[in-house]
Amino acid sequence: MTSTPDARPLSDLSAQELHALAQTQREAHAAQAAKGTKLDVTRGKPSSAQLDLADPMLSLPSATTDRAGTDVRNYGGLTGLTELREIFAELLWVEPEQIVAGGNSSLTMMRDVLVDLLLFGAIDSPRPWAKEDKVTFICPVPGYDRHFALLEDLGIEMVTVPMTDEGPDVDEVARIAGSDPSVKGIWIVPTYANPTGAVVSHEVASRLAGMETAAPDFKIFWDNAYAVHHLTEDEAKSADIITLASGAGHPHRAVMFASTSKITWAGAGVAFLASSVEQVAWYLEHLGKGSIGPDKINQLRHVEFFGDADGVRAHMRKHAEIIAPKFAEVDRVLTERLGGLGVATWNRPTGGYFVNLDVLPGTASRVVALAKEAGLSLTPAGASFPHGQDPDDTNIRLAPTMPPMSELTEAMETVATCVLIAAAEQLGATTKE
Amino acid sequence: MTSTPDARPLSDLSAQELHALAQTQREAHAAQAAKGTKLDVTRGKPSSAQLDLADPMLSLPSATTDRAGTDVRNYGGLTGLTELREIFAELLWVEPEQIVAGGNSSLTMMRDVLVDLLLFGAIDSPRPWAKEDKVTFICPVPGYDRHFALLEDLGIEMVTVPMTDEGPDVDEVARIAGSDPSVKGIWIVPTYANPTGAVVSHEVASRLAGMETAAPDFKIFWDNAYAVHHLTEDEAKSADIITLASGAGHPHRAVMFASTSKITWAGAGVAFLASSVEQVAWYLEHLGKGSIGPDKINQLRHVEFFGDADGVRAHMRKHAEIIAPKFAEVDRVLTERLGGLGVATWNRPTGGYFVNLDVLPGTASRVVALAKEAGLSLTPAGASFPHGQDPDDTNIRLAPTMPPMSELTEAMETVATCVLIAAAEQLGATTKE
Repeated sequence: MTSTPDARPLSDLSAQELHALAQTQREAHAAQAAKGTKLDVTRGKPSSAQLDLADPMLSLPSATTDRAGTDVRNYGGLTGLTELREIFAELLWVEPEQIVAGGNSSLTMMRDVLVDLLLFGAIDSPRPWAKEDKVTFICPVPGYDRHFALLEDLGIEMVTVPMTDEGPDVDEVARIAGSDPSVKGIWIVPTYANPTGAVVSHEVASRLAGMETAAPDFKIFWDNAYAVHHLTEDEAKSADIITLASGAGHPHRAVMFASTSKITWAGAGVAFLASSVEQVAWYLEHLGKGSIGPDKINQLRHVEFFGDADGVRAHMRKHAEIIAPKFAEVDRVLTERLGGLGVATWNRPTGGYFVNLDVLPGTASRVVALAKEAGLSLTPAGASFPHGQDPDDTNIRLAPTMPPMSELTEAMETVATCVLIAAAEQLGATTKE
Repeated sequence: MTSTPDARPLSDLSAQELHALAQTQREAHAAQAAKGTKLDVTRGKPSSAQLDLADPMLSLPSATTDRAGTDVRNYGGLTGLTELREIFAELLWVEPEQIVAGGNSSLTMMRDVLVDLLLFGAIDSPRPWAKEDKVTFICPVPGYDRHFALLEDLGIEMVTVPMTDEGPDVDEVARIAGSDPSVKGIWIVPTYANPTGAVVSHEVASRLAGMETAAPDFKIFWDNAYAVHHLTEDEAKSADIITLASGAGHPHRAVMFASTSKITWAGAGVAFLASSVEQVAWYLEHLGKGSIGPDKINQLRHVEFFGDADGVRAHMRKHAEIIAPKFAEVDRVLTERLGGLGVATWNRPTGGYFVNLDVLPGTASRVVALAKEAGLSLTPAGASFPHGQDPDDTNIRLAPTMPPMSELTEAMETVATCVLIAAAEQLGATTKE
């Protein structure tokens, strides 16, 4: 972050100066609260303008048979439409026979895989995971709250490792996975991670793919939710984890997930699962007990809308045109209000849906509470950590895509105000001693 | 069944007469095989003409907000659209707050509930079902093969009871459920059962709802797949199992499932789950860990298409116009060819998707094999029994909706031919001794 010309770190201020600053910010806070405006930057939801981009789909498909001539209105076709699988195989760097097109939620596919692992075990498991004394997942933090909630609900324990700019701290991951056979998996959001925006480097991916693990059936849950969700022309390419793992002698280690939830419609897209051909067959075997096939009409609707992989890429550039200015606005306000003050750091993601804000340790909960008083909903402090517990109480996830620009500006001004009040309170308490 | 004027039971024929009959039928069989026509009456799939009825949905919805003004394109709304729940609450005789509208498959909801019962237990369970030594389901037979496959995959044992014209043999059900605490549930297809077409009477439903069970958390899986799928003006009304169970002091006993798979599109409909408000909350709690909401666009599409519950009823009468003649044709051919011969009985369902054919004990597998030789695919003998084992080898499920009428006639003629050959073989073997 650049600092404003006259910015001095708050820790350099005298008690009197700190008091004056806090007073000014409290007045701004009270003024915002008095307006009664309701603002919300909690969830990574597309805005109406983004959803509008897919509205031509409302009158698709124009046909009711797929390329093979099968009636998409009827039962069947558990793997999903071949032509849709081909498009996303290209985008996700896998072979069409390695990918399944499903319903409207990759989160559902993740839960299904976890449930199947618990009840049946994987093709390389000695026994169902539920028969183990304990199952543990490595959770890079900060991470995606729904990943952690899923594990918590299923009774799977969590051990955290720090995120770096290149993905998880892979030395820590290798140490933990290499020594503890109860450690059966890891969550990775490889491209524009939720919430840090980090992209897993080829080196980190290679280590994850090749490392020795104490469990013979260690799984990488590779949630490539933002694979094509670029904000700049510097488009990150996801590491090809399935090929890397296979090449390292662990063909069934990686399971990739993706969806069009943030490409077409958040509630009515198509989700994908990819892995080794054998592991895909294992998934389909159990899926087929509770499904006679996905919504192939919605899949054909997507095929007709996109045409091909380049159609998806072109569509994503339209999203970037809408949301890149919002990310720029977050950075502008935070820089202007907090730059050089030593009370917050944040990232400038080149893709994805989040800005990761770290405030003074011990103040994140206070910032969220202050924001609420002013009418601004922030993701609860700690949400990006297992069980909602951020040990340093420092991390706040900002989701700038949903609000209109004017509301976003107001929300970020309010965030800055709350960060300053909380910082002044904490530094003031220290200064007094 | 009425008999043809000159029909004599095959068991009354002399060895010579039987031989002559078999010879005639074998010639017909050979002729059919020589034609090389491929016929299929295996699965209960709607025909193209039925699917066409819903084609106006291809350009719906016309709006992108629901009645409450929520954007249906975005995430959220785990319970499904209120207006769609209201329509199906009326049709299924429940309150809107007791019903959830989900994705395209009620089978998926059934599997989800079974998985949740195994992993977490119900709200009235002493422990997760997976922690029990054994879990057993009562399976009325003949029944739906996918119900049984689901249990088999999940390691749940099955005990059978016979179906009657009023539903399962409820004395047997009460005896088994009342004495064995491992017996945790029962499958019921209450309206136009798959495959017998039976409708559960109010008396049987009341017994099921009120009976004492050894397990405190006994569940009735009430798969009301054919609730509105009438073939005649004599429209069966499903017993109101949820109210009956609640009134008998077992509010969480029944879980109802339904879908529009055989109303709009088999692959792209909407599925429903209904139960007590508390049990619905339990279901949603776990569902919400793996879902941010169903495809609300498809739900709104259905709401606009139907308008209201009467819209669904009117739509179902169009289905009946298409498929009732097919059921009549099955009965016509079987009566003409097999009536009075004492080698087969079958039902004349007033709704649903199947005709249940019982042939001479010990000959069902032979009939299916003979049909295959002649180019006709029949559901495997035994499919309507747990583990595919029909102890009497007598039951064959016919699904007449999918083939065009000319193919259906040819298929039923072939069925009759194969039934006669198998019967003559069996009776001939006896006669020879």
